[in-house]
Amino acid sequence: MTNWKDIDQKAKQWVKEAGEKIRNSFDSTLSIQYKSNPNDLVTNMDKEIEQFLIGKIQETYPEHRILGEEGYGDEVTSLDGVLWIIDPIDGTMNFVHQQRNFAISVGIYGDGIGYIGLIYDVVHNELYHAFKGEGAFMNDLPLPMLDKVKIEEAIVSVNATWLLENPRIDHNLMTKIVKKVRGTRSYGSAALECAYVASGRLDAYMTMRLAPWDFAAGLVLIEEVGGSMSTITGEKLDLLTKNSFFVGEKSLHNLILTEYLI
Amino acid sequence: MTNWKDIDQKAKQWVKEAGEKIRNSFDSTLSIQYKSNPNDLVTNMDKEIEQFLIGKIQETYPEHRILGEEGYGDEVTSLDGVLWIIDPIDGTMNFVHQQRNFAISVGIYGDGIGYIGLIYDVVHNELYHAFKGEGAFMNDLPLPMLDKVKIEEAIVSVNATWLLENPRIDHNLMTKIVKKVRGTRSYGSAALECAYVASGRLDAYMTMRLAPWDFAAGLVLIEEVGGSMSTITGEKLDLLTKNSFFVGEKSLHNLILTEYLI
Repeated sequence: MTNWKDIDQKAKQWVKEAGEKIRNSFDSTLSIQYKSNPNDLVTNMDKEIEQFLIGKIQETYPEHRILGEEGYGDEVTSLDGVLWIIDPIDGTMNFVHQQRNFAISVGIYGDGIGYIGLIYDVVHNELYHAFKGEGAFMNDLPLPMLDKVKIEEAIVSVNATWLLENPRIDHNLMTKIVKKVRGTRSYGSAALECAYVASGRLDAYMTMRLAPWDFAAGLVLIEEVGGSMSTITGEKLDLLTKNSFFVGEKSLHNLILTEYLI
Repeated sequence: MTNWKDIDQKAKQWVKEAGEKIRNSFDSTLSIQYKSNPNDLVTNMDKEIEQFLIGKIQETYPEHRILGEEGYGDEVTSLDGVLWIIDPIDGTMNFVHQQRNFAISVGIYGDGIGYIGLIYDVVHNELYHAFKGEGAFMNDLPLPMLDKVKIEEAIVSVNATWLLENPRIDHNLMTKIVKKVRGTRSYGSAALECAYVASGRLDAYMTMRLAPWDFAAGLVLIEEVGGSMSTITGEKLDLLTKNSFFVGEKSLHNLILTEYLI
């Protein structure tokens, strides 16, 4: 019998410890000292944090499996058992350029069902977390269920890239959506964008290609506040492959899907 | 003889006090309680903060003039003397929807020259400030001079709106820029976007229509770290009217202007 409460407690502790490692790595001035060689740094810090988390998990739960962005986890081809899906630093470009607007993302699934979602905004010390059936929170504050929103009043996160001709979606579809909503934003971290949807700061978020570690934690949060999630064409998201990705308040998600996308 | 140091000290104190008023107005849960009637709230809080700041300024410096978004200041038709240019809440849509990603923006000019720039990210308690000739800071941390950046490595803030056909700019010009840069972001607060350019988190920011209170403080910050500023067609910004707006690291600003925009 899996003790999910125990896992939740330990996962939160490890994510906080990982966040502290990242904060300690920052210079005390604001100079973005790694900009000249961004790829090296990302690799080093990403690797270090993923290895730290994997070490803790394997030591404590040797029977659990791990799917991580940096590839130090397991070769995962099924969703059986307990599976940790980890992005040590989601929003790597922001991490390098901004030293903010990135997050540690950990989703924990049992036989394909999301039980625990943790998205940690390291710099602002804000932990967005959800436990299946018990709601979602930012630190100690409960996140309310999402209120119905009209498309004319919606703020949607979509990167300007998807308004250009691209191989993944007819950009004219996106143009129509952007014209209709109240405003658009783009933060550059899928995990944080999911956390913002879960906390009602964004009404929807869409992008054309995400890996499971980018969204595994976010799905658990959004599920707990009654939001909807699918690919951009309304299919179920697959936790083992890359997907297009569309989450949002339920009525808005449904309207955009049926009237604009499919 | 204007005592700019005295003005700087008082302005910082008042902006911090105004920020505390805003923070106190937030609910202790994360529910976005004003969403159903956003315009009322924005007006009330905007008005209250502008009136608070204007009250302090008029009491202490009766000879100074004030240009404020909400119109409680003076009818300003010239840049003579000491002029405070105030946006009590820059990023109103974010304020209502997100209770974050907005700022108090105060720029203080003497005969048209920027002496003091204050941009206060209220929720994160981060005050970006600059004093003419003495550099720019985030809280106590000095912001370094901006390093030269290649367009292929640049992160540029531009809202998706400007990638659609619009009456202000040929969107094909914007398309070419977005295709060339490393990434785009959009935060929805011009003042914060200026603060991010000044702190090197964004390499440039462009938008097609801003009022003086949106950018007056930002210009002082960007000037102090060696950045460039102009309209989208390379003209000098006018502090008395709305302008298109383009700020960024000097070499990048020049390259985008000359090779993409004019």
